[in-house]
Amino acid sequence: MTTTPASFGINRRVLLATGASLPVLFGPALRVEQATAQADPLQSWSDNTSKQVIVEFVARVTRQGNPDFVPPDERIATFDNDGTLWVEQPMYVQLAFALDRVKALAALHPEWKDTQPFKAVLEGDMKTLAASGEHGMAELVMATHAGMTSEEFQRIVIDWLATARDPRFKRPYTELSYRPMIELLAYLRANGFKTFIVSGGGVEFMRPWTERVYGVPPEQVVGSSIKTKFQMRDGRPELFRLPEVNFVDDGPGKPVGINEYIGRRPIAAFGNSDGDLQMLQWTTMSGGAGLGLLVHHTDAEREYAYDRNTSFGRLDKALDAAAVNHWVVADMKDDWKRVFTFD
Amino acid sequence: MTTTPASFGINRRVLLATGASLPVLFGPALRVEQATAQADPLQSWSDNTSKQVIVEFVARVTRQGNPDFVPPDERIATFDNDGTLWVEQPMYVQLAFALDRVKALAALHPEWKDTQPFKAVLEGDMKTLAASGEHGMAELVMATHAGMTSEEFQRIVIDWLATARDPRFKRPYTELSYRPMIELLAYLRANGFKTFIVSGGGVEFMRPWTERVYGVPPEQVVGSSIKTKFQMRDGRPELFRLPEVNFVDDGPGKPVGINEYIGRRPIAAFGNSDGDLQMLQWTTMSGGAGLGLLVHHTDAEREYAYDRNTSFGRLDKALDAAAVNHWVVADMKDDWKRVFTFD
Repeated sequence: MTTTPASFGINRRVLLATGASLPVLFGPALRVEQATAQADPLQSWSDNTSKQVIVEFVARVTRQGNPDFVPPDERIATFDNDGTLWVEQPMYVQLAFALDRVKALAALHPEWKDTQPFKAVLEGDMKTLAASGEHGMAELVMATHAGMTSEEFQRIVIDWLATARDPRFKRPYTELSYRPMIELLAYLRANGFKTFIVSGGGVEFMRPWTERVYGVPPEQVVGSSIKTKFQMRDGRPELFRLPEVNFVDDGPGKPVGINEYIGRRPIAAFGNSDGDLQMLQWTTMSGGAGLGLLVHHTDAEREYAYDRNTSFGRLDKALDAAAVNHWVVADMKDDWKRVFTFD
Repeated sequence: MTTTPASFGINRRVLLATGASLPVLFGPALRVEQATAQADPLQSWSDNTSKQVIVEFVARVTRQGNPDFVPPDERIATFDNDGTLWVEQPMYVQLAFALDRVKALAALHPEWKDTQPFKAVLEGDMKTLAASGEHGMAELVMATHAGMTSEEFQRIVIDWLATARDPRFKRPYTELSYRPMIELLAYLRANGFKTFIVSGGGVEFMRPWTERVYGVPPEQVVGSSIKTKFQMRDGRPELFRLPEVNFVDDGPGKPVGINEYIGRRPIAAFGNSDGDLQMLQWTTMSGGAGLGLLVHHTDAEREYAYDRNTSFGRLDKALDAAAVNHWVVADMKDDWKRVFTFD
């Protein structure tokens, strides 16, 4: 293990939250939707096999009379978020949020100066933080994601996103969404699909901005969550966030979450890691028409390059399964003409 | 406690399931939607205060420039199911299902002849069944709702609904849905609302038929659930239903479920019992425009009459709260010209 945040060995099981929405400004999703109305809807995709397979799949399931035709109501598409729709390096954005929150709250917690893993965060000691493992991560998440109402947490997320900047690209994190994937979301919706996010990330961390950035409304976001408790305070009802895991939407949890929160089996699923393996199996191995796609991070120059040999965002079993199951492996370097909307 | 099923003291916490959808035939929802397109959309409602309040609320939140205007995306309406959208007497339909399943499965379980609460079910001994309490109910539910895949359970529900008949009306249970409420669902949708079911009943028991009967697709149904497990069997992925409670969507669980599964606060909520109290509080006491409505069962002749003094479907605290919070109390006898679609 190195000492860079990228190789943290951060476990998704501890990056959690839950959600609600605020009125938001127009973002990349709408801009892309407008731009693509007149032109090739997948203009950021190179004319390679990946694009062809996507377009042919959509044609097959939407053409009346085709044996693979699927009625619009059943055109469910599910997208992983971290590494599939936006950048997950050098660390999950939600982890960057948790670290910033520890720093922001440190004055209220003088004991953190001498308590791990908080001490490590405050001192920027990534090696010790990584060594605190899953238990340490859980402590960080609970200290920063629980102990307030859902509305208060939503406000904290929105305020943080407004000022936080990615260390490499020096841009708001919401701008580090992949333009080809935003085009793909819009293209599917234009073809009658209902698009959902199914992410290991915290649902309440995502819901405040997914509509603006991806065109996906809060009620179509499935994610990990902590428990909440209903209570009346001063005559007003509120939901209070508790430091207790409710649901982990990762790996085999993804088909479970899809069934529980959506209640239909997708016909298309998009991921980038072994945490998406079971979602793609569930989507494509039922006997009906099903599209599976993995984003393969092969472009260290424009973004990052990692798969089997990294402890972070590990893509290993799912890459083997892709070959067997004929899933599309979208090669970021070859298949994407542009990576970001700001390119 | 009497010995009729109606006074079971059945606890909602033990009537559970989870869901997915099948292609379904057109049902009451579509027929009502077509019929009301040309006429008064709430034609089964008498011209009383209840109807006026509903219509005025919808006008207020949908009229551009009105201070209470709500953008379409945020027009979320949530409906309880049992006793609000369809009949819950003489017992929850899902309990009737569980009892029938015990009888259907009895040949595979010879031990049930001598084991409670199964013995009571097989002998039609409702008094002993009631006395088995919450623990007995949980045993019934787990024996009939778990131990198969989600797809198998869905098929069992659909097959049962095709032949089961309500004991009083001698009709399929799905025909015992309330016409005025189906009109209300359609009316809200016609005004840009997104309609959700938020029920204490099992989500997988409801999802196979809610689109046909209410026009509510599976992904807009929130309910109680048992846990499921993802597994590969003979090279095919499946979700296996476990005899373990996952989520109880009742009472204070309803706002929790709304936040977790929908992620937005409703602006209108509809219920009929104390199990809906917190959902209506959450919906109407936030400061913004909010409509709360309780269906009051006052019509023993056309349906049933019950509220405070019954152990079943208890409406007590919520009736008090309705007066304080100006919720509509829809009087079935006075406010509904017709109760069922077959009237």
